[in-house]
Amino acid sequence: MNFRLLLQYDGTDFHGWQVQNNLRTVQGELERAIGMFEEAEVKVIGSGRTDAGVHAEGQIANVHLNRFFTTDKLRLAINGNVGRDVRVLQVEETDDNFHARFSAKVKTYVYRVVNAPVISPFWLRYAHHEARFLDVAKMNETARLFLGEHDWTAFSAARSDVENRVRTVKEFAIDSFWDARANAVVIEFRISANGFLRYMVRSIVGTLLEVGRGEKDSDTIWAAIVSGDRDLAGKTAPAHGLTLLKVDYK
Amino acid sequence: MNFRLLLQYDGTDFHGWQVQNNLRTVQGELERAIGMFEEAEVKVIGSGRTDAGVHAEGQIANVHLNRFFTTDKLRLAINGNVGRDVRVLQVEETDDNFHARFSAKVKTYVYRVVNAPVISPFWLRYAHHEARFLDVAKMNETARLFLGEHDWTAFSAARSDVENRVRTVKEFAIDSFWDARANAVVIEFRISANGFLRYMVRSIVGTLLEVGRGEKDSDTIWAAIVSGDRDLAGKTAPAHGLTLLKVDYK
Repeated sequence: MNFRLLLQYDGTDFHGWQVQNNLRTVQGELERAIGMFEEAEVKVIGSGRTDAGVHAEGQIANVHLNRFFTTDKLRLAINGNVGRDVRVLQVEETDDNFHARFSAKVKTYVYRVVNAPVISPFWLRYAHHEARFLDVAKMNETARLFLGEHDWTAFSAARSDVENRVRTVKEFAIDSFWDARANAVVIEFRISANGFLRYMVRSIVGTLLEVGRGEKDSDTIWAAIVSGDRDLAGKTAPAHGLTLLKVDYK
Repeated sequence: MNFRLLLQYDGTDFHGWQVQNNLRTVQGELERAIGMFEEAEVKVIGSGRTDAGVHAEGQIANVHLNRFFTTDKLRLAINGNVGRDVRVLQVEETDDNFHARFSAKVKTYVYRVVNAPVISPFWLRYAHHEARFLDVAKMNETARLFLGEHDWTAFSAARSDVENRVRTVKEFAIDSFWDARANAVVIEFRISANGFLRYMVRSIVGTLLEVGRGEKDSDTIWAAIVSGDRDLAGKTAPAHGLTLLKVDYK
């Protein structure tokens, strides 16, 4: 049977999604937990990797199991055997062909920035802190340049085994709101695409933060997109501000 | 000069507010940090103690300093020398008579409960988890019994050196909302009084949770309030769900 899992995790204490020897990873933690009650080798397939420190509010994974479980039992069995910083929120039985990575159509990430003199302890783990003024209208105007199908070489990790770097950004909006709890303005960068390269969201956000501070203009950004020249892009924003929000399937 | 501080802290890794030998406390951390640049003995006065694990979104403290500081400099100097789980959000110069504890008129606490099969990793540190059904309307109806001036012996710590246990509860409301991020209903108990005894909010909330689960009725609660009999009150709710929201002064 093939089970589809809706997962949340606080990435702070994980070395990312993907299994690595001797390091605590989300995939590793899930496979270890499921291995406690499944005799065959367990392979948990995620919609994609998230890097060390990146969070998930709506990661999707699937796992094939020989043993029969009701969906509630499987959820409880996994949650009882993993750290409390990762939770299976929902389990569904799905058809055998469902593959969390290959079946994914659109992924949405949110990058959060606390724009205030002081960052609240309640945002510390989940948002990047920027005390300087950020021009949200200017960032939103510039964000439109990132829409559509492009080769994202300038906005991805230099070393990568991915050959095709063309992806389609479908939506990109920047909103800001007053968060009374944190006594601060929170800015959310929400970006959807049919796929993302490694560091792509963090590189795009880091570049836009330079626009928001008035350090970069939109001509330079357009040149970066068109030329693929990494030197024209901005600094990669830190991992802990990034959260995988949702994954859409057909 | 007398400075008034607006503070936030994540109580998870603190042994409460009050200085204790060899334990990390909020007051201890602040006094150590200020002691690095003030020669006289430093005494940080809080509006009240918070217990181990309890958070603050709006704790107020004051400190008398001999050395001159602008308010911005003082904020930066303290924040640069304390752990990132406590932050000074604002500093104001105030008159010499201001005393964070004695001048306080009303304190407001919020107690948060995630009422869902699974608690999100993003609420884990800040809310109590209750998977069973809670009748919010019933709890709100019963909450009215707690309004007004009463002796709160039944709802406070058994061992206490406080002689007068009369306090006035001024407001008490229970709200629930859907939190999309956590995929769950969050219930907030918000209670204001001219002062609170130790464990008072947690004891009241723990009692109301029993009402919400249909285990206790309002007659028993009224009997507890009137008689001061601790056996009639419910279990004290865990510390990590509790947050000091604000302190009002004249």
